[in-house]
Amino acid sequence: MPNVKKDQLEQYTTGILRAVGAAAPNAELVARMLVGADLAGVGSHGVVRVKQYMDAIDGGILDPRAEPAVQTDAPAYAGVNGNRSFGQVSAAYAMKIAIEKANTAGVSIVGCCNVNHVGRLAEYMQMAAEQGLIAVAFCNGGGPNVAAFGARQRVFGTNPIACGVPDGTGGQHIMDFTSAATAEGKVRVARMKGEQLPPGQIIDRNGNPSSDPEDFYSGGSVVPIGGLKGSALSVVVEVLGGILTGARCSVFDDYVDGNGLLFLAFKPDLFRSQEDFYEDLSLFHQKVTGAERADGFDRILFPGELEAENREKSLKEGIDLPDTTWEMLSEIGDSLHVSTEH
Amino acid sequence: MPNVKKDQLEQYTTGILRAVGAAAPNAELVARMLVGADLAGVGSHGVVRVKQYMDAIDGGILDPRAEPAVQTDAPAYAGVNGNRSFGQVSAAYAMKIAIEKANTAGVSIVGCCNVNHVGRLAEYMQMAAEQGLIAVAFCNGGGPNVAAFGARQRVFGTNPIACGVPDGTGGQHIMDFTSAATAEGKVRVARMKGEQLPPGQIIDRNGNPSSDPEDFYSGGSVVPIGGLKGSALSVVVEVLGGILTGARCSVFDDYVDGNGLLFLAFKPDLFRSQEDFYEDLSLFHQKVTGAERADGFDRILFPGELEAENREKSLKEGIDLPDTTWEMLSEIGDSLHVSTEH
Repeated sequence: MPNVKKDQLEQYTTGILRAVGAAAPNAELVARMLVGADLAGVGSHGVVRVKQYMDAIDGGILDPRAEPAVQTDAPAYAGVNGNRSFGQVSAAYAMKIAIEKANTAGVSIVGCCNVNHVGRLAEYMQMAAEQGLIAVAFCNGGGPNVAAFGARQRVFGTNPIACGVPDGTGGQHIMDFTSAATAEGKVRVARMKGEQLPPGQIIDRNGNPSSDPEDFYSGGSVVPIGGLKGSALSVVVEVLGGILTGARCSVFDDYVDGNGLLFLAFKPDLFRSQEDFYEDLSLFHQKVTGAERADGFDRILFPGELEAENREKSLKEGIDLPDTTWEMLSEIGDSLHVSTEH
Repeated sequence: MPNVKKDQLEQYTTGILRAVGAAAPNAELVARMLVGADLAGVGSHGVVRVKQYMDAIDGGILDPRAEPAVQTDAPAYAGVNGNRSFGQVSAAYAMKIAIEKANTAGVSIVGCCNVNHVGRLAEYMQMAAEQGLIAVAFCNGGGPNVAAFGARQRVFGTNPIACGVPDGTGGQHIMDFTSAATAEGKVRVARMKGEQLPPGQIIDRNGNPSSDPEDFYSGGSVVPIGGLKGSALSVVVEVLGGILTGARCSVFDDYVDGNGLLFLAFKPDLFRSQEDFYEDLSLFHQKVTGAERADGFDRILFPGELEAENREKSLKEGIDLPDTTWEMLSEIGDSLHVSTEH
């Protein structure tokens, strides 16, 4: 397992993306977002995705030279056409607009369509929270892998939701989670390792609960979290992320693979003073993390804390990248004559 | 089990609320919202709550004569102080403002504090969707009953989320669900009946999974849906519904019981034509409800469909109210000299 430094991995990834036509700032942005996921310990959304992006370019659904553009505009909202640019480029562009509008109107909503895979939503929540704003994201697409409650056919994506909140002391709380009980990538890993899945994550082709990853690949589905509740949550994400924005839904026959993205941003002092907001947020954080632990738990983490700690650690010690990921990246780099040296 | 007609139950409930000092329009509104829940088959949020409201009046946290008021105002947002009025009065007032603002600014966000129990969120989502708007609600409070992932102490409310979407043909899709695996009321019912709970809903005082309702009342907790994911979702609801709005969190020692409420409203044609939006919504509805059914399921319901069907049925056939609910209501009515005749 190679250990790579953040800068090295970013520069190598940037080189690959530049070699396929991305402008320097876009290549750097995508590389920073991907490596950000690897730093946070969320390797599923890290540089391992470069292969998928190369395939998307080959398939004509990702244009590495494209730039997103605003297509509807008002004081409190904007619609962004990603123009099939890199998803990270579209999403960061949309979030910048959401930030600007929230700073003037107090609140903003930005929808984004024609977007490729955006990576980890936490990165965009971080952008807003670093500017002192609360942000919320609804993101559909990437599927269908998930059955509605009572069904045995896949109709939803994994449909993540995210929220970023500044903590008033220069830090941020970042929530980023899916509406599905697991991700297809985790089912794949269990299958490769010959392991069983924890109960309650997938159903077989007949809709019966299963722990065997093979069942997923033989016509089964991932289930939503909490049965009927998560199924309703998934519908919300498909409607807001996909249908409202125009990105559409992965269950549609003519769907173009990618993500649909709705960003909300607003100031923390819309309804009360910043001081009161941050004081209560700090108290709430104390109450949650200071609660008595269940048997078998060393500590209670607030959402995002593990990822922030992973980042700190990886910045110091480097990123332990799986062999397969490094080999994949090197293969692409070699084929494009991009050097790992700099 | 008495069978009562909608009008009869509304008028009786209105009479009770007027007798404790509520102005006629407020009494009628609260009664309509409560009976609306009974009609929808969601008895837990119906007239059974009248007892709780009487207790809240006695306890000085609900002022039956109070009216909510706007305390911060801008084109795309408003802050509402519920002034400890009936929760339904505050929430309907807040939603009316959200609707007005969304109609002019395209999008709006309205926060509401000093709010008593608002009943069923679906009622407010319905208000917006009937006006052709999409609405989203985050609502905290009512607890704490739910432990964070990894903990064995209650820190969250059941924390519902709701979303209303017009379907373009005069109908509405209404999603309304909690971030918790079950509600305290359901644990209470299982305990009274001497039944076990389904697995995955509660933990005992040590944080171990349990199906015995007694364990909840001996220092246990309800768990969030989906473990870590639902725990993060609950944090989002507490931050948006409670901390942002100023309603605060039920885990705080000096919390005043009630709900914290954040409403979002926006037009369905912010980013694409209404026609395209409704066409995709209809297609998505077909895909979800038309998917192959899992073993043991007769049909796949879109969120809110069961409740809408219940309403139709109860409007025709009357509401079958549990004996205990009717007795409780009659007892309160008798003590206030309110007649069931009209």
